[in-house]
Parts: sequence; structure tokens; C-alpha cells
Amino acid sequence: METKVILDTLWVVFAALLVFLMNMGFAALESGMCRSKSTVNIMSKNFIVFAVSTLGFFMLGWGLMYGDGNAFIGTKGLFFVSGADNSPNIGDTYEGVYSAISWAGVPLWVKFFFQLVFCGTAATIVSGAVAERVKYISFIVFSFFLTLLVYPITGHWIWGGGWLSQLGFMDFAGGTAVHSLGGWAALSGIMIIGPRIGKYTKSGKINAIPGHSVALATIGALILWFGWFGFNPGSTMAADPEAIGHILVVTNMAGIMGILFATATAWIKLGKPDISMSINGLLAGLVAITPGCAFVSVPSSLIIGALGGVLVVFASLFYDKMKLDDPVGATAVHLANGVFGTLAVGLFAQKGINGNEVNGLFFGGGLHQFGIQAIGIISVGVFAFILTSFLWLAIKYTIGLRVSIKEELNGLDIGEHGNEAYPEFIARKINYTHLLEDINLVEEERSKQQVKVCY
Amino acid sequence: METKVILDTLWVVFAALLVFLMNMGFAALESGMCRSKSTVNIMSKNFIVFAVSTLGFFMLGWGLMYGDGNAFIGTKGLFFVSGADNSPNIGDTYEGVYSAISWAGVPLWVKFFFQLVFCGTAATIVSGAVAERVKYISFIVFSFFLTLLVYPITGHWIWGGGWLSQLGFMDFAGGTAVHSLGGWAALSGIMIIGPRIGKYTKSGKINAIPGHSVALATIGALILWFGWFGFNPGSTMAADPEAIGHILVVTNMAGIMGILFATATAWIKLGKPDISMSINGLLAGLVAITPGCAFVSVPSSLIIGALGGVLVVFASLFYDKMKLDDPVGATAVHLANGVFGTLAVGLFAQKGINGNEVNGLFFGGGLHQFGIQAIGIISVGVFAFILTSFLWLAIKYTIGLRVSIKEELNGLDIGEHGNEAYPEFIARKINYTHLLEDINLVEEERSKQQVKVCY
Amino acid sequence: METKVILDTLWVVFAALLVFLMNMGFAALESGMCRSKSTVNIMSKNFIVFAVSTLGFFMLGWGLMYGDGNAFIGTKGLFFVSGADNSPNIGDTYEGVYSAISWAGVPLWVKFFFQLVFCGTAATIVSGAVAERVKYISFIVFSFFLTLLVYPITGHWIWGGGWLSQLGFMDFAGGTAVHSLGGWAALSGIMIIGPRIGKYTKSGKINAIPGHSVALATIGALILWFGWFGFNPGSTMAADPEAIGHILVVTNMAGIMGILFATATAWIKLGKPDISMSINGLLAGLVAITPGCAFVSVPSSLIIGALGGVLVVFASLFYDKMKLDDPVGATAVHLANGVFGTLAVGLFAQKGINGNEVNGLFFGGGLHQFGIQAIGIISVGVFAFILTSFLWLAIKYTIGLRVSIKEELNGLDIGEHGNEAYPEFIARKINYTHLLEDINLVEEERSKQQVKVCY
Repeated sequence: METKVILDTLWVVFAALLVFLMNMGFAALESGMCRSKSTVNIMSKNFIVFAVSTLGFFMLGWGLMYGDGNAFIGTKGLFFVSGADNSPNIGDTYEGVYSAISWAGVPLWVKFFFQLVFCGTAATIVSGAVAERVKYISFIVFSFFLTLLVYPITGHWIWGGGWLSQLGFMDFAGGTAVHSLGGWAALSGIMIIGPRIGKYTKSGKINAIPGHSVALATIGALILWFGWFGFNPGSTMAADPEAIGHILVVTNMAGIMGILFATATAWIKLGKPDISMSINGLLAGLVAITPGCAFVSVPSSLIIGALGGVLVVFASLFYDKMKLDDPVGATAVHLANGVFGTLAVGLFAQKGINGNEVNGLFFGGGLHQFGIQAIGIISVGVFAFILTSFLWLAIKYTIGLRVSIKEELNGLDIGEHGNEAYPEFIARKINYTHLLEDINLVEEERSKQQVKVCY
Repeated sequence: METKVILDTLWVVFAALLVFLMNMGFAALESGMCRSKSTVNIMSKNFIVFAVSTLGFFMLGWGLMYGDGNAFIGTKGLFFVSGADNSPNIGDTYEGVYSAISWAGVPLWVKFFFQLVFCGTAATIVSGAVAERVKYISFIVFSFFLTLLVYPITGHWIWGGGWLSQLGFMDFAGGTAVHSLGGWAALSGIMIIGPRIGKYTKSGKINAIPGHSVALATIGALILWFGWFGFNPGSTMAADPEAIGHILVVTNMAGIMGILFATATAWIKLGKPDISMSINGLLAGLVAITPGCAFVSVPSSLIIGALGGVLVVFASLFYDKMKLDDPVGATAVHLANGVFGTLAVGLFAQKGINGNEVNGLFFGGGLHQFGIQAIGIISVGVFAFILTSFLWLAIKYTIGLRVSIKEELNGLDIGEHGNEAYPEFIARKINYTHLLEDINLVEEERSKQQVKVCY
Repeated sequence: METKVILDTLWVVFAALLVFLMNMGFAALESGMCRSKSTVNIMSKNFIVFAVSTLGFFMLGWGLMYGDGNAFIGTKGLFFVSGADNSPNIGDTYEGVYSAISWAGVPLWVKFFFQLVFCGTAATIVSGAVAERVKYISFIVFSFFLTLLVYPITGHWIWGGGWLSQLGFMDFAGGTAVHSLGGWAALSGIMIIGPRIGKYTKSGKINAIPGHSVALATIGALILWFGWFGFNPGSTMAADPEAIGHILVVTNMAGIMGILFATATAWIKLGKPDISMSINGLLAGLVAITPGCAFVSVPSSLIIGALGGVLVVFASLFYDKMKLDDPVGATAVHLANGVFGTLAVGLFAQKGINGNEVNGLFFGGGLHQFGIQAIGIISVGVFAFILTSFLWLAIKYTIGLRVSIKEELNGLDIGEHGNEAYPEFIARKINYTHLLEDINLVEEERSKQQVKVCY
């Protein structure tokens, strides 16, 4: 066997496993940022979501995404990874877009696993946004169809040789294909399921609902940081030392600037260096650099990360103002920064960085690439938002989407799973009676929101 | 240095380290599934067990397992890795059985470390089964002799060129050599040490004893999943892209089917999607595919994983019915599925999968291989069960095996370690007086069981 | 691209990421070993420290350490990794000292990232020692200057072609360059900031202040163990199978002997097998073998690890006797064993081990190398202790170093971050009134200590 194939395979397997470990990162982060009465439910969701994603992506997703077909979807050999293999090949030559030819030599199952962990990430992003009120079975069903149908179609446009890739849309490691896609699915979910009881009161007050374990959340964030070094440098899908080194460093630079600027922004704006803002600042920086990590310079990555860090703080406040209850800030992190980072490619891309042939606006390339990036963002956004809204609504009107009010107040763990996460420890008794007046509000809100999304 | 040797070394080191990380997975899983009053003890056991295993395997284990010798044990150069090196070489050609020639080129210490982490896993399996009542020092002594003597001997039969390997017994990554071996040691331990006080009441009721942290347990399970991608694909012990890709995917497929089927089975049978069943379903699927991961197809892996997931639920109920108290379900996971998975090789093996030359029953090979698999399972089981029973009993009648009743009721942490795991948090006071009547029962049971195993 | 460069790059990236993960290990270990009222603060420190370290090492640190210059510091192309690249090259030939020529072929950004994670480790070591009383912003400022200035200068002496490397000082993976350097910074910090309120009473009693989560601490330690397999074997900075295998095994051997001997020592001396001693025994063994891992044999590593395990117990008791309050034992682990391990190279080094050309005292080499090692230890120690003392004092007299007494008693989380780590769980109310008499003592002590270090 050719040495290059072995080297590429080792690198891709290593990177894929780092991304796989992000499952643990998301599980810890999400459960840490939510209340202890939902921990069993959150852990269950995060545990089963990769199982469901594997099934969805194996059954049909891969075929739709990388099978032979047209500019919109794969149409041949759709089921069970039976068709042609159009997974991306960027190998030694970074052309700025993925070519639709075979990723030479690396075995099909390795490619499949590598693409699967990215697909799984998109599904996991949604989990945090609808946490603490979504029914377990409903989340399972949603994840299945997201990975079977939604992710693969927009993925085909971007990475499977579809129309966006033909247009020259640049999304190196999945700012749009993975993060904002997951973000749109999260946003439609939040709008349809409504906020947690007590989050927004009748009087217009926004209640902070602190997570039950900062330790768990921080550990999760550190694991995600670790995993991102597979996510971005691994997307070379080839053991290319220069590219790996460059992407490794710009990824880290954007992440640390995200931390520093989000922490500082929160310190100035909220008066304290809130750790959840530090954490989401990291993730914001990492998401923001994801689409452009192979195309921008180290100094640019510092700027992109810093802007991401500031953006996530304001996005979080904005979502709260809009009464969009996102317990972990998934939309502020993955949607806002997925969009921003993808646009940033049109601003900061530089010819010559890892073989890239495109200059962004700030490097003399004009608005051409920025326009293509915007087209990609909008088309993926509209498609994903409509399709996932339909999915959420279909679930809502069939098996139901949200747990009962009583179950939500007592915690999903007991209602959905018959378990408690920490049966030996005494949790502070929180008096829910003052929330009763809000419950009507919640119901009202929910019906209003329903109208909003039922175009 | 030859490139192939470097590639193989990098792959083996990477895989070995993933398996090493399973120490953390087992520590988190076991402590999460047990009560907080045993957490220090469980963490201490899981922390020191790899130290003890290293010592045992270094002092004699490696020599017995891979030294020159006869079909039963290595006999030359036994001590301190001083003898000939008969560690397996399957390299490019998968012959279905390990050949007893040297694993060409990869440095001895790399091989030693790789084999050591597998040995350590076997010892760790035992830890969970005897948790919450075994004395710290007694577990240390048992682990030492398990890794010094028991694991290496059956390991020699299977992987060291011994009689089972000569017979054609197929156990790619250790369904029998590691998992059921650990499972037999766990079973004999459970039988000899007896159940935890209060688990089974005089009236025949089985009390569930919930673990103190679902968060900890789930994190542990996700780390184990991650580690298994070293355990199985790493057992190629060569950087073979096709084999690695195939094993990666079948391992994951079996794992996710284990999750889905165990969750569904528990949901139907127990009325709720119990997360500990989801977790043990994952592990069951992963164990079940371990012996055959290089020999079966992807569709077969789906079936094997699904059956493993169902099996683990019924095995757990069965052990409970037999009053065999296994706090983490180690026997249901590693013993039941180690046996099942090894048999499954005789059913699902397919010629041509990674160079395998054997067809199982379902692929026209008749009962030949199934018979060999059964012989291997039975001989390893009988030998391991007897030897470990002897070990447990020897410990029991010398330094003692079980902590005092008072210590067990108050928690091993205070009695054995003078520490509490969470000294600042208030644990719910559990009234133990209703258990006092059971204590006699426990004593009775214990003496009865003693008779049973004292053949 | 040449295959060797690709192989070396993959290995170095893999190793660097393992070391990066140690951030999570230190975060979990430190927070687990401290009280819950400081958890948000500790997690925040450990989360932001790598961000700050990246900035410091990127802005100036790399240039000072590896830029062209004189025997004392790099002087050309100092800023933003713009100068010549004098990062170490030991590649195939282990000459016992690092040569000051380029590490051939591996891309600069890969080298930068690899060196960065070591720099970050030094900063993280300090965090634990000053935990539970240092101001968040003050720790940030200290870490910035440590990684910008202090670490790179002594690093230049040892690894950047400076005077110690020219003298023949041997420190393979950073026993002095990283661990004792971090340890000296921790020691000066402890002396200047003073002990936590209530740790040492007027009557001379030493109060144990147990950590809030043994589970968290143990998980952290297991992750650190895992990360060390990048730290030491990765310091080959080349995919050299023999060296990697050797270093992997001696690292593990020293670690496990550290566990076993620290546990036994604590058991004998304190009456119980204290898990925090087992954990620090592991770390002690790992630190002790770090400088010599490529130069000593496997049997020697057993002895070095065992001595490290004993040493850490006595060092902990000694620091406590000196009223140097180190909540996690960072100085006992990293300083005492960093010094011991570096000296041990002068005792145990053996010609022929990975191309090493030096024999230590015990292998017929006389006191020559031991003397050089002592010179390195003393010069780095004096320089680092003075410079970091100056830094701590400068911070103390400008922005302040320690939180207010009220804040310390109530917990840094509320005072510094406006958060609680576990808002839902009821912590045992600890009555602080009996400490009020100690507070004066603390103040007295602090002023006394000030005098001591204000030379």
C-alpha cells in the first residue's frame, strides 16, 4: 500500500476520533449549564444522539451527500453507503473549493466515519438549545431526520460537489455545513418549543437560570477545544504538514482571542468575568475560524476570533431580548458565529495561504467572494430553517414536542426517565409557585410563536 | 529506519494510549454508578489498578504470555520482559489466527505497552463487580496476581502461540482474552464476596441501589466508547488502512446498535428508557464485536450489536435474580457479551473480510469454527473461574476480602481511606436500621456461597 | 513532501495535543482538591491561562527562547514569531543535549504549537499553588509575564542553544525548563501571598482543608497521566520508534512506582492510603522521570519513580511545617521532583540509551554530569525565584494580589465572579467565627513573609 495513503488514513482517523470525543464535551457542557433536574435527560440525549446520527447518516445521509446525482442532491446508490464516492478531495492542492472527485486512496469506511462525526456534531448542537423541555423521543426522531435528510442535502451543496461548491462557496471545516446548519435547526426548535417556564416573566423580566455545575461545563468546554484540533486541522483530510500546522495555530489563536474578548466584554458590560461567557467566547472564536481556517493568515485569525468573542456576548443578550430561550447559548455560538465566520472568509481570505487562490475584500479581492459566501449562508439558512421548522412542527402535532408543565417543573429526569442524576444530594428547594402566573404567559407565548413560524 | 515500522509504531502507540484512557472511563463509570460513600475507594482502586497491573505484567505476565515455551505457557526468559518476543504479528495478512512469530520491526517496548493496556483492562473490569464491599488491599493483591498469572496464561493460549491459537480459535481484539476473562474473575469474586448489604432482602425483594452521579457515569461511558476505537482498530497492530477503516466502522455500528436495542428493550420491559441500560447497551455492543471486528461484515456488526444490546438487559435481570450483586453490571457486559461475541465469530465470520479465510455457520462454513470458539470459551472460562476463585478464597482466608458490616454501612471511604469524596455536600441520610435484619441474611448467604465455590 | 517530515509532524502534533489536554487535567485536579466555594474561580483561571500563555508566548516568548541571540536570550526577530528558528532538533541522534540548529523540516507553526503547550503547562502549575486566595486579574497578569518573559529566558538557556545547553545540561522533556520553573514561580507566589485563612492556627495547628470532589481530582490525575505520554515521548520531536517506545515505558514505570511508593508511604506514615497522596505520587514519579526519560534505563526509572513517590509525601509535610500553604501540592510535585529528577540524570544516565553519550555517577561517569545538573538547577532556580518574586510583588503593590478577607471567607466565586459553581446543592455550613482570631495571625504572617522575600 502506498505510504501516502497510510499517512492520510492515520491522520484522518486521528482527527475523526478527536471530533468524536466532542460528544463527551457537548454532554458535559450542556448538562453543566442546565439544572440538575434535567441531567439524566441531557446525558441521555447526548449519549443516544450519535447512535441516531450514525443510523441516519448510514441509511441515507451519506448517499444524499456524496452519491452521484445532480447539483442539489445525490440520487444514485443512495442507501447504506452503496453508491459512488464523491467525498471531497483537497489533498495537496487547496483550490478554495472542494472538487467532486474521489479522495484518492483513503478507504471508504474511513471517509465515512470522518464525515459521520461531523454530521453527528450538527445534531448535537441542537440538543443544547431545546434542553430542559423537549421530550426524549421527540429529540431522537428529530435527530434522525436531521442527519438522514437535512444535513446531507445542504452538505451536498457545499462538500458533495453540489451547486454551492460549483459556485465557489468556501467553507473549509464546516462553519455553514455543520455549525450554522445546526444553529438554524436549533433556532427553529427554540421558536417552536418556546422558552422554559420561568425564564421570561409577565413583567418582562429575564431570569437567569444558572447551570448546576460549572465544573462539568468547564471540563466539557476544554474537551471541545481539544476536539476542535481534529475538526479544523483534520479537514485537510490529508497528512499535509504545512496546512496542519497553519490550521492548528489559527484555530487556537481564534479560540483564545474569543476567550479574552468575550471575558473582557462580559466584564465591562455585566460587571463580572462570567465563566459561561468565557466558555462561549472560546466556542465562538473556534466556530468563527472554522470555515476560513485554511484560507486566512494568523493575524487575521486573531481578529476573527476577537470579533467572535464580542459577537457571542451581544448575540446572547439579543436572543434573550427576543425571548428565545437557549439554555447553553447554542445559537449565539454556532449560528451567529457560523454565519459571521463564513462571511469572514469573503473578507479575510488570502491568496497563497495553503494554495488558496482567492483574495477577500480586505486583501484586494473585492466583494466577489463575499457575495458568494452570502448566497451560501442565505440559501442554506432558508432551506434549513424551513425544513427543520417543518420537522419540529410535524413532531409537535404527532408525538408531541414538549413535556408537560408538571414534568418540566419537577424535572425531566423523573418524568422521562424515572431517575435522578444525583439521588443522594439535596438540591435547594426552589419554590415554583411564583412561576404559576408565568405558566399562562408561557402558553400564550408558545401559541404566538407558533403563529410566527407557521408561514 | 524503515517507513513501515515507523507507521506501525505510531499507530500502535496511538491505539495503546486510547486504551490507556479507558482507565479514566472505567473510573468515572464505576464511581458514578455507585454510592457517594464509596467514591474515594472506587477512585483509589481504579487509580492504583493500572500501577499494580503494570507491575504484575512486567514482572512475569509478559514472559508467561509471549515468552518461548509450550502450548500452555511461556517458560523461558520469564521475568522482566527478558525472553523471546512471541507477541502476535498479524500485519498485512489476516489469517484469522495470530501467528506466533515476531511482530516485525515494532520495538519491543511499544509492543509491551500495547499488550499491557489490554492486561490492565481485564483487571479494571473486576473492580466494578466487587465494588462497595471489597477491601482496598485485597483488591490490590487480587489484581496483582490476575495480571501476573491468570490473564497471561489464557492469553498465551489465545495470542501467544498456545494451543487455542494452534486450534484456530479466533479472538481478534480480546472478547475472550480480555473481556470474558475479566468477567469470569468478576463472577467468582461476586459469588465469594456476596452482595452488598440491603441489595437483596429476606423477603426476596431486589432493591435497586442507584449510583450517585449519572453525569460521572455517562462521561465515563463516552470515554470508554472513545477508547474502544483504540482497542479494536488498534488490534491490527499495523497501520493497515483498509483494516482500520473496516474495524472502526463495525465497532461503532455494534456500539450504536447496542445503545438503541438496550434502550428500547429497557423502555419496553421496564417502562422507562433507563440511562444505565443505554450505557451498558453501548458497552455490550462494543464487547460483542470485539472478538470478531476484523472478521465480520458491517451488516453482521449491526446484528451482533443489536443482540448484545438485548442480551445485556436480560443478563442484568438474570444476575439479579440469582442474587449476584454486580453494582455496575460488569458481568452482564463483559462476561455475557464476551462469550456471545466470541461465539458470534463462529456464526458471522466471512471469508475475504480483511484476509480472513474462515466462514462462519451463517456463511456456509458449517459448525466447525463455532465448535472451536466454544472450546476456547469453555476452556478459558473453566480455567479462569477456578483459578480466580482460588485467588479470591486465598485472600479471604488470609488478609480478608470484605470490609466490616459497620464500615460497609458507613461507607468504605471513611473506613478504608479516612476521607470523604464530597465533604462539603450534604448527602441524604439513608436509614440503615431496616437493613439490620438483612445483615444476618447476608452472612448466611455468604457462607452458603462459599460452599458453592469450594469444590 | 518528504515522508520523514510528514511522520515527524504527525507525531509532534499528536504529542502536542496530548499535552494540551493536560489543561483539562490540571483544571479538574485543582478544583477537585479545593473547596467548592472557589470552583468557579479555579475553573476560570485554568480556562483562561492557556489563552494568556498563547498571547505571551506568541508576542515575545518564542522570540526570546528560540530567536537568534546570545547565550542568555534571543535578541533578533523577537516579536510574533518573526525571527530565526532555533527550536531544538534532536531528531535521530540523541546527543544528550539539544543542538541549536533547526528542527529540520517540521513546519514552524507545528514547532510553535508544540513549544507553546509546554509553556502553558508551566503557567498552569502556578495556578494550583496560589488557589483560593489570588485575585483573578492578578493571576492573569502574572501568567502573561511568566510566559512572555520568565519561562522563555530560562528556556533559552536550556533548549534554545543558550549557556546551559552549551555546558551540557541535560533536561530532556522539561524537568527544569517546565516543572521546577513553574514550581519556583509557585513557591515565590505562596510565600508572598501567604496561606489561606484557617490553614495554620495561632496555636500552631495545621488544619487539613479537604477538597470538595475526589471524583473530579482523580479524573484530572488520570488525564494528566494520559497527557504525559505526549509530554515525554513527544519530546523526541521525531517519529523515532525505539526512542518513543523506551520513553513511553520508562515514563509509565516511574509514574506507577510513584503511585505505589507514595501510597505505601502515606499508609505507613499517616495510617491510611490517602488518595491525594496516591495522585501526587503519580505526578511526582512522572515529573521525576521527565528530565531523564530518554537517558535512563527501565530499571533506573523504577528507582527514580519510587524515590519521587516517597519524596512527594515528605515534601508535602515539609511545606506544611514551613507554613507554606499549597492547596494542591504543586511545589511538592513540580518543584521538589523537578529538582530531584534533574539531579537524577547526573546519577542514572547511561551511555547508549537512545544515543546518549553520558554516564551518570552510578554508571561510572563520576560527578561531572551531576555537577552540571546542579549548576542548571541552581541558576534556573535563583533566576526564576527572584524574577517571579519581583513579579508577584509588583502585582501586589499595584493591582493587589489577594482577595479581601470577607471574599476569601465567602468564597472567591461570589466575590470575583458573581457565580456559584453548584448553586443547587447545599454545602455544609462551615462556621468561620473560630477563624477570626487567626485572621490577625494571617496578616502578621503575611507581613513577616514579605520581609523574608523582600531581599
